[in-house]
Amino acid sequence: MTRTVIRGGLVITATEEVEADVLVVDEQVAALGTPELAEQWLPGADAVLDAEGLYVIPGGVDGHTHMEMPFGGTSSADTFETGTRAAAWGGTTTIIDFAIQSIGGSAPEGLDTWHAKAEGNCAVDYGFHLILSDVHDGSLAELDGLVGEGVTSFKLFMAYPGVFYSDDGRILRAMQRAAGNGALTMVHAENGIAIDVLVQQALAAGRTDPREHGRVRHPLLEAEATHRAIQLARVAGAPLYVVHVSAAEALDELVRARDTGIPVFGETCPQYLFLTVDELSRPGFEGAKYVCSTPLRPEEHQRELWRGLRTDDLSVVATDHCPFCFASQKELGIGDFSKIPNGMPGVEHRLDLLHQGVVDGRLTRRRWVELASTTPARMFGLHPRKGTIAPGSDADVVLYDPRAEHVLSAGTHHMNVDYNPYEGRTVTGAVRTVLSRGRVILDGGEYRGRPGHGRFLRRDTCGYLT
Amino acid sequence: MTRTVIRGGLVITATEEVEADVLVVDEQVAALGTPELAEQWLPGADAVLDAEGLYVIPGGVDGHTHMEMPFGGTSSADTFETGTRAAAWGGTTTIIDFAIQSIGGSAPEGLDTWHAKAEGNCAVDYGFHLILSDVHDGSLAELDGLVGEGVTSFKLFMAYPGVFYSDDGRILRAMQRAAGNGALTMVHAENGIAIDVLVQQALAAGRTDPREHGRVRHPLLEAEATHRAIQLARVAGAPLYVVHVSAAEALDELVRARDTGIPVFGETCPQYLFLTVDELSRPGFEGAKYVCSTPLRPEEHQRELWRGLRTDDLSVVATDHCPFCFASQKELGIGDFSKIPNGMPGVEHRLDLLHQGVVDGRLTRRRWVELASTTPARMFGLHPRKGTIAPGSDADVVLYDPRAEHVLSAGTHHMNVDYNPYEGRTVTGAVRTVLSRGRVILDGGEYRGRPGHGRFLRRDTCGYLT
Amino acid sequence: MTRTVIRGGLVITATEEVEADVLVVDEQVAALGTPELAEQWLPGADAVLDAEGLYVIPGGVDGHTHMEMPFGGTSSADTFETGTRAAAWGGTTTIIDFAIQSIGGSAPEGLDTWHAKAEGNCAVDYGFHLILSDVHDGSLAELDGLVGEGVTSFKLFMAYPGVFYSDDGRILRAMQRAAGNGALTMVHAENGIAIDVLVQQALAAGRTDPREHGRVRHPLLEAEATHRAIQLARVAGAPLYVVHVSAAEALDELVRARDTGIPVFGETCPQYLFLTVDELSRPGFEGAKYVCSTPLRPEEHQRELWRGLRTDDLSVVATDHCPFCFASQKELGIGDFSKIPNGMPGVEHRLDLLHQGVVDGRLTRRRWVELASTTPARMFGLHPRKGTIAPGSDADVVLYDPRAEHVLSAGTHHMNVDYNPYEGRTVTGAVRTVLSRGRVILDGGEYRGRPGHGRFLRRDTCGYLT
Amino acid sequence: MTRTVIRGGLVITATEEVEADVLVVDEQVAALGTPELAEQWLPGADAVLDAEGLYVIPGGVDGHTHMEMPFGGTSSADTFETGTRAAAWGGTTTIIDFAIQSIGGSAPEGLDTWHAKAEGNCAVDYGFHLILSDVHDGSLAELDGLVGEGVTSFKLFMAYPGVFYSDDGRILRAMQRAAGNGALTMVHAENGIAIDVLVQQALAAGRTDPREHGRVRHPLLEAEATHRAIQLARVAGAPLYVVHVSAAEALDELVRARDTGIPVFGETCPQYLFLTVDELSRPGFEGAKYVCSTPLRPEEHQRELWRGLRTDDLSVVATDHCPFCFASQKELGIGDFSKIPNGMPGVEHRLDLLHQGVVDGRLTRRRWVELASTTPARMFGLHPRKGTIAPGSDADVVLYDPRAEHVLSAGTHHMNVDYNPYEGRTVTGAVRTVLSRGRVILDGGEYRGRPGHGRFLRRDTCGYLT
Repeated sequence: MTRTVIRGGLVITATEEVEADVLVVDEQVAALGTPELAEQWLPGADAVLDAEGLYVIPGGVDGHTHMEMPFGGTSSADTFETGTRAAAWGGTTTIIDFAIQSIGGSAPEGLDTWHAKAEGNCAVDYGFHLILSDVHDGSLAELDGLVGEGVTSFKLFMAYPGVFYSDDGRILRAMQRAAGNGALTMVHAENGIAIDVLVQQALAAGRTDPREHGRVRHPLLEAEATHRAIQLARVAGAPLYVVHVSAAEALDELVRARDTGIPVFGETCPQYLFLTVDELSRPGFEGAKYVCSTPLRPEEHQRELWRGLRTDDLSVVATDHCPFCFASQKELGIGDFSKIPNGMPGVEHRLDLLHQGVVDGRLTRRRWVELASTTPARMFGLHPRKGTIAPGSDADVVLYDPRAEHVLSAGTHHMNVDYNPYEGRTVTGAVRTVLSRGRVILDGGEYRGRPGHGRFLRRDTCGYLT
Repeated sequence: MTRTVIRGGLVITATEEVEADVLVVDEQVAALGTPELAEQWLPGADAVLDAEGLYVIPGGVDGHTHMEMPFGGTSSADTFETGTRAAAWGGTTTIIDFAIQSIGGSAPEGLDTWHAKAEGNCAVDYGFHLILSDVHDGSLAELDGLVGEGVTSFKLFMAYPGVFYSDDGRILRAMQRAAGNGALTMVHAENGIAIDVLVQQALAAGRTDPREHGRVRHPLLEAEATHRAIQLARVAGAPLYVVHVSAAEALDELVRARDTGIPVFGETCPQYLFLTVDELSRPGFEGAKYVCSTPLRPEEHQRELWRGLRTDDLSVVATDHCPFCFASQKELGIGDFSKIPNGMPGVEHRLDLLHQGVVDGRLTRRRWVELASTTPARMFGLHPRKGTIAPGSDADVVLYDPRAEHVLSAGTHHMNVDYNPYEGRTVTGAVRTVLSRGRVILDGGEYRGRPGHGRFLRRDTCGYLT
Repeated sequence: MTRTVIRGGLVITATEEVEADVLVVDEQVAALGTPELAEQWLPGADAVLDAEGLYVIPGGVDGHTHMEMPFGGTSSADTFETGTRAAAWGGTTTIIDFAIQSIGGSAPEGLDTWHAKAEGNCAVDYGFHLILSDVHDGSLAELDGLVGEGVTSFKLFMAYPGVFYSDDGRILRAMQRAAGNGALTMVHAENGIAIDVLVQQALAAGRTDPREHGRVRHPLLEAEATHRAIQLARVAGAPLYVVHVSAAEALDELVRARDTGIPVFGETCPQYLFLTVDELSRPGFEGAKYVCSTPLRPEEHQRELWRGLRTDDLSVVATDHCPFCFASQKELGIGDFSKIPNGMPGVEHRLDLLHQGVVDGRLTRRRWVELASTTPARMFGLHPRKGTIAPGSDADVVLYDPRAEHVLSAGTHHMNVDYNPYEGRTVTGAVRTVLSRGRVILDGGEYRGRPGHGRFLRRDTCGYLT
Repeated sequence: MTRTVIRGGLVITATEEVEADVLVVDEQVAALGTPELAEQWLPGADAVLDAEGLYVIPGGVDGHTHMEMPFGGTSSADTFETGTRAAAWGGTTTIIDFAIQSIGGSAPEGLDTWHAKAEGNCAVDYGFHLILSDVHDGSLAELDGLVGEGVTSFKLFMAYPGVFYSDDGRILRAMQRAAGNGALTMVHAENGIAIDVLVQQALAAGRTDPREHGRVRHPLLEAEATHRAIQLARVAGAPLYVVHVSAAEALDELVRARDTGIPVFGETCPQYLFLTVDELSRPGFEGAKYVCSTPLRPEEHQRELWRGLRTDDLSVVATDHCPFCFASQKELGIGDFSKIPNGMPGVEHRLDLLHQGVVDGRLTRRRWVELASTTPARMFGLHPRKGTIAPGSDADVVLYDPRAEHVLSAGTHHMNVDYNPYEGRTVTGAVRTVLSRGRVILDGGEYRGRPGHGRFLRRDTCGYLT
């Protein structure tokens, strides 16, 4: 039995800010106590972590990553080993990655493939969603089994015809199945069929550079698909989670639905909060670094997204971490923007960038923790094991220095990618120490974790439906 | 030169109610004058029609009919001859029917086929929209030519996969073309892909009777498609006309768009204003008489539709006249509701049923004329030739008795169909006399028209866009 | 019997654009006819007005003027003689001015006072609304009689405490009375009680110049009062007309109400469509020229107002003509912006400025006529006598040259005020000839009218409620 | 030093449900620990409370009570002694009562009066809001001092002219002051001026019985005032808390504002969630028992209020506890419903009735705790001292049996009033044990508290504004 005391910090959870000490026994939080009471823990402690002046927060839960994901003939640049290590550096102690059912393949096969990629390699705990690429009676039936195995959420694409795309009938059927087995349906909400028309028209007109990416993926086509997904979910009687919301008009659709009490949830990502579509117009082919879908939007959308985070019309901030190196990968799209691999790195910076929102007065500290950890944990059936600091919860704990400044840069980051979309940006706040299930895996700028420490998480169903 | 004076009536147009006499010279209205002034017209008149106590209104313009239309292995029961004669009996002096581009066929071929059906057979003037079933570079290019020939509106189906259905990319491309050539895009807004899933599920579950028709065609799936069509039109920069709106939720989408000044227009039909989904549950197979798409809705939707007509969120009342006989045609769907030919008769009753709305205090007389005649005429590029009584306009004039009562019935109607959906309903108001281009074709219960009097109308582009 | 033929023009009404000639007999329109038919009118004509290349439109109806109105110790600078002559110059052939019931005085007394001011002095026809300053059982009872005398609309002020202000109880009672006697309730919708607090705070802080006028009269305080008036009207079951809407937020409240079919109507004025709050910051005391209430707003409000005019969420454009000379009148407010007489001149320029909206592509020609003439005529019970060109209507007709350019200026205008708020602005379109009840009162730059030609109009009740 | 261990329960807070034991040392929570860890606490414990099968929740915080309040010539029937004892019986360990500044009196005087009533008499802790009846420079200046003394919220009435009513100017000024000193402005949002007109009309028409109370206090007049308060708060730049929201239309106004991120908060009460306006029509004068303002509403409003509680458009459930005995007090209104003292008892039943919402599937357990305890504590500056169970928070803890059933009745309740509005209603769930600052004041049906245990709470400013 190992006992660790985190002493002197301000424990921040989604609802509390308490000056309390935390007693960790083996892999779990055993107790929270006042500093006075906690003095009695010190004698028997194996380790005491000094949190004076620091925030003590639950480790981040990144509900949206793509490690080692095949896409457009290449593969995202972070492995589960490198990606989860970068996550740890950034204070994220849980990721939920997307296993992919390939077309013609079965859902369990897809899951097995991802288990093989992750097992023994992860620095932090991990779970899986399943991307359902091929909806039919067979694959729908398989979903029930996956729920039993702790894969309780499925993603469908309204974008990417010919790749991941499902038509509305398939989406409806999957939602109906989810209504029955308790799974949460996630959608990438963009009207891919219409977008593809605009892509072809752009290319036919000789408009081939990265900035076209932002033009053809029209905000109204995100709003349209968002509305459509909501109505299909209502018809199916199923809850809905919309990934990477970037357009204010799409957010409006969530607002409309949520105002009437419909269980729909929105996720956004730091890139939509801090970067704009203007990045796509960088000189040369540099804009390709900022190609992701949904795309970056004009600056005025940011204000609405921040508001949505405050009013809980957006419930989660994830990263959609899907890094492709500029050299050799992003460059596949030279001369044809539609061939640029879609995706950006981010798993390492989410907590810091959101904390910048706290520093800037956009969010409270509690809301910061809620968006980055508590809500995704509960959304994806991991709460109270993850997402909080409470007796019995996993001791995934971050000691965070709210005053330290540091600079984001490819030269210092730990993600396996040759550029950083926030290159040179100074942020206030920094991860000092990270515990994963009671074990210190990062401390004072030194990584102490190891591949294989992280375990697969069998998830319960979404915690917002009961 | 033939001169006819319409004497003593109350001339009602979309904005005026004037006690005036109308002088018709040959095919056109030559003048409106005060009764005092009009006395000087009497000596030279070939005919004087006594309109004392009657309304003198522009002939009805029915912007949505399907004569002799092939559907589901059969054909709608009215020919252009019988259907336009029934229109005349009902005070409608212009119809716009839908020519169909067949899959694999060209748009001009489709138009030619319909010209052949109509020419020489019509009792009243007629125009054509084109149903675009097969959107590709070739058919899109053909549209420009059709606009030049006076076919200035194209209809696309978001319903009926495998038949008329176009996917969102095709719809977007057609709308883009319309944005260029000035045509008006019409859509049947229901999510046919999702509906087909529900249809198959119902049949698989042994639910085969007509009432299922109302269940599978969910109001939210009409609202969804309406919203989608609006967003696609906004992306294309094109105006939009949504046919046969029946769901309050779909109307809400029109309201939202129109409030921001977007040029979208809604049409509803008398069946949605006077009948409800309960008709589908009639004993035996009788419900099949009421199978049309969009379907009849629960009663509470009617209140919203009437409100929409008052607030101009719905702009047009057309019939979607598409009659199938109960015996032999509707009965094709015994044992499988999805095989019931979709459609209802109505071309003869539109003016009377809408006038009932006047009698019931739901509409003003001017709005009655506007919805039934003026707006569709202007919407479809026929104004001021049709849709009003003004110097120079075609003398399509109806003398209407606002106090006469009559009973709607298959026993007395003139449509070529073996049932009447309003069987036994008493309405207040009746057509007394009908002039089509100056010629009396109906008077005092006697039909005086003839096949071939009606001419093809080359239409201008939509009058609401400039 | 005098016969005048208006020949060769394009007759534009709210719904028609017709190449027709107009036959005027004595004071009324006797007929409209095609040019061919109208040839037979020429031999017996006393006069033929050549309208080739011109629009022939119904004379303007300005539903909101204040001639010779006492305000803040002075009086508006136009008498009924000068003001109605200026109206005629601008193509307005009907004004509806506001008689005032003084506090402690009776409503009929107020009306008598205004009759005395107007009678024998007006160049064009005129009617009266009544400003109800003192709501009590007695004055409410008097309203029924006024309706019988053709004064069918009453205005209440939510602004100007201590002057015209009525509290919500008085407003509710007046609305209840109106619900009974068919009168239309007009409101000046600004929260005067709150505004007065802000005024006092500004003055106490030494902020005394005209720009403060725009600051203290907050857009939200217009929106607030608009919403309040709507709810009170709903409780009373009465229709509502909101004068001089200038804030986008107030328009939003009208939109919300109108979307649900509630009979509320909005008026705006040219100053809100063409001028902005920036005018109040002109150097020296020049800003005082632009002090009116509701105040001018920032530019972004204009876009919303124009949209509201297009979508009929705003139904009328009136002038709120209430001129005060800069010298001696506006200057009363030097050192205390709250003492600046509120009001601007405008009766002469309304048709031209709105036509500029046509030229700029913001409105159709028909909508121009509707907003400036037809709707106010019907709104205030004057249609079809005024507001249209139809057999039997008063021959108030304007021949309008759509291509002529002219410059607005105090040096050339005919209003009795020493400045022009649009000084130096060039507009396209000009009044050529004006007929008032069949008589040419303006032609080719020459005024031919006379005081006393204009007659008092007994109005019917609002034409939008049946 | 006294140590109490609460053992074996399910600790529920606003975000957590944890099987944990709670260690209380003296007046505060010292630690939460897993049952395993907590075994080490047992040896040194003075008391161990068995919570097996029970919920362990933070004590209720009732943000809206009126003990010993003068109203309409009488006084609410509960003293601070009886009322806070009843609160304790119901699991509420903090009340915030309303001290009243009388007209002509100073705010500190009002506060002193209430301190005198409460001090030494309360069973549980208490704080004060201040009702501001007389807004002027002096009383506004006094507010700053009150904030310093822990009275950080002020209530203004838009209802009750001549009693508590403030006009919009006074409300604006108070809000401006609050914007400066950090206080929270509370409003009773009903248009009292308009309501009084309807009251007088009802009485004049001989409609005098209690059901008139529900008729004259029109839902639109609540919605109107709610909208008005929101706009005034926006102009002042101040947050807003709307008490006792009962009309769906008023809730809509909160939704609109909150969707745009404006800091407005809504409170509702159990009576609006469980009772309807039909109660006012009980035979005889029984309806008077249900007279409160805002009034009870038709049943369809309840569904919207529950939805608002789920979507956080309503943030707090308080009681507005203001009991008047039927005999002698409510009966003052026989023959004149406007003389019925406004108010209902409720302080004892809030937790149980809200828990019924949990049992009925309307709320989660966490939301139950949040609405009843955490949010009001934070809203009124008492968090984390009150409203949670965390190290360092006051040990106000309730052991709640979720399965026990009991019947609400005047025969068994502990409030000092002769009727129970929920008479005979069975609820599932019951308070078993109550700790107030570490002391057991209720246990197993036995009251162990005493007057004077409860202390005055100096409150911080609202916790939702930073």
